[in-house]
Amino acid sequence: RISWISDIIVVVSPENIETMKTIIEKYGHKRVTVVEGGITRHRSIFNGLKVFAENEFSSHLLQKPEVVIIHDAVRPFVEEDIVSKVVMAAKEHGAAGAIRPLVSTVIASAADGCLDHSLERARYRASEMPQAFLFNIIYEAYQQCTDYDLDYGTECLHLALKYCKTNAKLVEGTADLWKVTYKRDLYAAESIIKDNLSQQVCVITNGKETLAQVGFLLPESLKSQIKVEAISISLSKNDSCLQNIISGQCYNFVCVNDKRCAIQETQELVDMLDKSNIALLCPVVLISVQLDISENNSFSIGMEDLTTIKKFARETKKKNILVYGLLIQYK
Amino acid sequence: RISWISDIIVVVSPENIETMKTIIEKYGHKRVTVVEGGITRHRSIFNGLKVFAENEFSSHLLQKPEVVIIHDAVRPFVEEDIVSKVVMAAKEHGAAGAIRPLVSTVIASAADGCLDHSLERARYRASEMPQAFLFNIIYEAYQQCTDYDLDYGTECLHLALKYCKTNAKLVEGTADLWKVTYKRDLYAAESIIKDNLSQQVCVITNGKETLAQVGFLLPESLKSQIKVEAISISLSKNDSCLQNIISGQCYNFVCVNDKRCAIQETQELVDMLDKSNIALLCPVVLISVQLDISENNSFSIGMEDLTTIKKFARETKKKNILVYGLLIQYK
Repeated sequence: RISWISDIIVVVSPENIETMKTIIEKYGHKRVTVVEGGITRHRSIFNGLKVFAENEFSSHLLQKPEVVIIHDAVRPFVEEDIVSKVVMAAKEHGAAGAIRPLVSTVIASAADGCLDHSLERARYRASEMPQAFLFNIIYEAYQQCTDYDLDYGTECLHLALKYCKTNAKLVEGTADLWKVTYKRDLYAAESIIKDNLSQQVCVITNGKETLAQVGFLLPESLKSQIKVEAISISLSKNDSCLQNIISGQCYNFVCVNDKRCAIQETQELVDMLDKSNIALLCPVVLISVQLDISENNSFSIGMEDLTTIKKFARETKKKNILVYGLLIQYK
Repeated sequence: RISWISDIIVVVSPENIETMKTIIEKYGHKRVTVVEGGITRHRSIFNGLKVFAENEFSSHLLQKPEVVIIHDAVRPFVEEDIVSKVVMAAKEHGAAGAIRPLVSTVIASAADGCLDHSLERARYRASEMPQAFLFNIIYEAYQQCTDYDLDYGTECLHLALKYCKTNAKLVEGTADLWKVTYKRDLYAAESIIKDNLSQQVCVITNGKETLAQVGFLLPESLKSQIKVEAISISLSKNDSCLQNIISGQCYNFVCVNDKRCAIQETQELVDMLDKSNIALLCPVVLISVQLDISENNSFSIGMEDLTTIKKFARETKKKNILVYGLLIQYK
């Protein structure tokens, strides 16, 4: 996602290395080197840094960067903006890290399990990730630090201060930098992803009269709730407008068609989505609205129609495209 | 919920007092006194305590308790167990509070926005709620504390220590005590509530042969995923077994009926649920499975059936009972 990052080192516990390599290949991630982690946080980070400095840890030594960013996988919502701020601050100060206000008061307990003292909340901050360092500073800090630091320490900024006399610049981060720690955090993360995916919907109709009318009215009634792109095209023509919408990360589509050609037209959209790889990471939702505009219909739904849609949806689901069918009969 | 709590003081900002009183009446909360809050946390808590000691703050002085519990509304998932532990510890030590391990390292920043020092994470804890105090201790602490404490302080345990030389006992709390602070916390809270509500489902059938078969097979296939209570009764008889399930906080029902009497039987269940008040705080979900077991049916769904269910569901929704209809045709 961020083009100015030249290499990404993923430090993984030995038993998960193969899984990680499979993920990297499946989703086509580039610039990634997988490194075996240590038994503590600091030992793992140190292993990651060695890839730039010691031959034994990698088949090919990567070019030593001026600045390294250290980040946790448990903070999945980091934005380019904060990464960039932390890097610029590290260039100037040698070290930098994101911080957040404390949510609860922090207290020190005595040996008997009673309160020793409480800290004045306004004077302290929670240290979050990402952090960035001049490579030479953080690497020297890790080379000089004690086994006690490596085994019990948790804070990279502390190592830079203790061993390289570098007072890190603290950069105010956004609330989304929180650490996914408890089960409830998984719920929260899931909801944030869903929220982001449902920012925009694209309504597609082809040119016919009745359909075009639906294709006009539907976006009108939706637009107070969500960003709507409405396009009227024949899907069989390779449409650049639709291509742009797909590559603009739209994950929701409503396809309004005459029932008689609905499956065929929907198939063409599925093919386009499939080719674009957009459904690789997140599911695409596609609602196929099928209008029965023939004159002599009764209010009954044929079993075959339902079976066709179900079969079609089962196939597309394998491609991470979730198709929902909606049969509407006009009278 | 907790019977050994004699009074509950809810401290609310002036503009929300009427809303709070409406909520208390609507949901039938007992033992509650509403008190006007101050402009800071400590001033609000102090106002709450005065109800037990100073006539001017309440039309009738409540009986002074031995122990008071202080809790935040933003921690909605507190369990009786931790409340009880904190109260027992307060009885013995004069003060007690729930704590949690720190999720992030805490650091102190210098005036120039750079790192001053970082705290060793293992030595510190996050101070959470609930906290409990001997009434005389916390009330004296509030009476003696300075305006600076009242305006800028955040920690009740600190006041008890500073003004009454009482070192609070620290009690390890559960992860669910976290403070609902950010938007993501609302998502998490919503998911936890949903999770709790969907712990159990009750499948109800009446005695007829075909229905009883479904009423047997459905629980069998559900029970690997959820706790299932299956009962076979005629709802028109006042059944004590069903009454027990409802009062045991079951929020999910599947009602399997012959299509011809489904609405009537479902109505009887809705009446029972309504009378029990269970749907007052959380929605009850009721899936009405309507089997068409007549011989001469065609695979078509009559519009009238759908309209009837829709109308019925619209009415029950006003009672916070969400009815979903499922028509199944046998051949």
